[in-house]
Amino acid sequence: MDIADLATRILAGERRALARAITLVESGRDDHRAQAVELLDALATSNRQALRIGLSGTPGVGKSTFIESFGMMLTGQGLRVAVLAVDPSSARSGGSILGDKTRMDRLSRDPNAFIRPSPSQTALGGVARRTRDAVALCEAAGFDVVLIETVGVGQSETMVAEMADLFVLLLAPAGGDELQGVKRGIMEMADLILVNKADGDLKSAATRTCADYAGALRLLRRRPQDPDGFPKAMMVSALAEEGLQTAWAEMQTLTDWRRENGHFATRRADQARHWFEEEVRLGLLARLEKDPAMRSQMAELGNAVAHGQTSVSGAVLEMLRALS
Amino acid sequence: MDIADLATRILAGERRALARAITLVESGRDDHRAQAVELLDALATSNRQALRIGLSGTPGVGKSTFIESFGMMLTGQGLRVAVLAVDPSSARSGGSILGDKTRMDRLSRDPNAFIRPSPSQTALGGVARRTRDAVALCEAAGFDVVLIETVGVGQSETMVAEMADLFVLLLAPAGGDELQGVKRGIMEMADLILVNKADGDLKSAATRTCADYAGALRLLRRRPQDPDGFPKAMMVSALAEEGLQTAWAEMQTLTDWRRENGHFATRRADQARHWFEEEVRLGLLARLEKDPAMRSQMAELGNAVAHGQTSVSGAVLEMLRALS
Repeated sequence: MDIADLATRILAGERRALARAITLVESGRDDHRAQAVELLDALATSNRQALRIGLSGTPGVGKSTFIESFGMMLTGQGLRVAVLAVDPSSARSGGSILGDKTRMDRLSRDPNAFIRPSPSQTALGGVARRTRDAVALCEAAGFDVVLIETVGVGQSETMVAEMADLFVLLLAPAGGDELQGVKRGIMEMADLILVNKADGDLKSAATRTCADYAGALRLLRRRPQDPDGFPKAMMVSALAEEGLQTAWAEMQTLTDWRRENGHFATRRADQARHWFEEEVRLGLLARLEKDPAMRSQMAELGNAVAHGQTSVSGAVLEMLRALS
Repeated sequence: MDIADLATRILAGERRALARAITLVESGRDDHRAQAVELLDALATSNRQALRIGLSGTPGVGKSTFIESFGMMLTGQGLRVAVLAVDPSSARSGGSILGDKTRMDRLSRDPNAFIRPSPSQTALGGVARRTRDAVALCEAAGFDVVLIETVGVGQSETMVAEMADLFVLLLAPAGGDELQGVKRGIMEMADLILVNKADGDLKSAATRTCADYAGALRLLRRRPQDPDGFPKAMMVSALAEEGLQTAWAEMQTLTDWRRENGHFATRRADQARHWFEEEVRLGLLARLEKDPAMRSQMAELGNAVAHGQTSVSGAVLEMLRALS
């Protein structure tokens, strides 16, 4: 593969080159990984930045419809939009996000949009690296907005929030007046809570739900990275395409404020540093699994401690010596 | 320090030697660690086993009183009892467990008992290793029962359950009929739930609480390592010294059954293997912090990615190459 040529075509915004590059960063093969790193290094100096929006919502809140309507509104303004899906459960469920792509019918045919389904990966660590690499590729390809969507499963929301500039939580109107079991930790990550389906019969339920969340958000501690009034809860209807312009305006207001106050750049720097350190740790641990000699020594010493033939601490010391 | 001599004295059951050895395994110094490993290896072949009982209970349930009464009952039967405290919060709270020791007045003066307060450590990983080493030392010193107690803070219960043969949850009678916010994960780890303070005015509340938990336990999936009727909820009064013999009889019934059915040995082997693998991983990661050259290269590359001078993936690869 000609990496320099691939880089040039990505910088020119070619969607097929981008798709191919994402496949490359998703590969688990060592030679592919080396090429991926060469490509990412070649693109690192482009210094192109998209607005990275993390979007979380459990199945049933109308996430696909929202992404389609919101994405179409953005491309209608001349912006280029990439959608990346993070779904740690997709390996099990057989790729529900792939189904989403066919449901985002208009957006997937829009020349200014790029939709990439979630890779079928089980390990969240692997999903994180591939998604962050894919975000970097989309930025190099000149996209203005990268939507990173996730279903609310396990740690995936934290992971997405850690690679996004903004974190948006999409909710459906609740039946009663109770908050929808949204964990406090997720609330604290949200910059914007959007109560979807604020249309037809659900409008009054949406109004109540939105008020409940606005109240809950007011109880949270003020974060230094927020201007007055944020985090915020508001209503949208993805189906009726209502409230989307306002939601986008709020995202821009927040982003502009953070840029002016230095929080935007600081957050990106912290995220990059954190990502680097985490990857080094994971890479170091991966060696225990990868090297056959190490793996067999681990197994051997593991059996010895299991059978009480050696102390655990002694076996640990022996293994760490072998690893140095 | 003469490690061979220390080992001999521990095997002879000398409490002062045991205390000194625990101080050694708690030390963070490299030379102490090497001596600790030498000692643990020397003792590994003794093959002495205590019954390791994990005991969890939040402040206010009467844990100190229970340990004192239960411990005195055991020593009254001629058994030797060691009590180890695991309190990840003790570094902050200034060592509340040390206060417990003075409250376990009778037990701490009993020649057949040994009480060790929690080391002032912040990292749970470090607490885990030191506690497991201390358990191994107590076993070599010939104790029959090792009580590993923890307050219900964060991950400490899981950690204690992972190093114990039995996990006992101590609770106080609840005011209403609600379960006391005990997390499902903790319930699933418990082999025995003891509702304490089943005396005086609280007796009827204790009866209700015990029935509630017995009902909740019946809803859990049957575990292969349990005979009929386990996990079990029962009432005790540590203050009136009631129900303690029965609780001990239940622990023995459960242990005997597990020994006969192979679960006891399998669990110990799995725990040792898991502990070994976890320690190797932690030791490997600790190198990133310990080696000054590595630490400065990590900081340098971290700054480079934070300032966008290099791709994260490129920096990761460079760092991993330096580490190999």
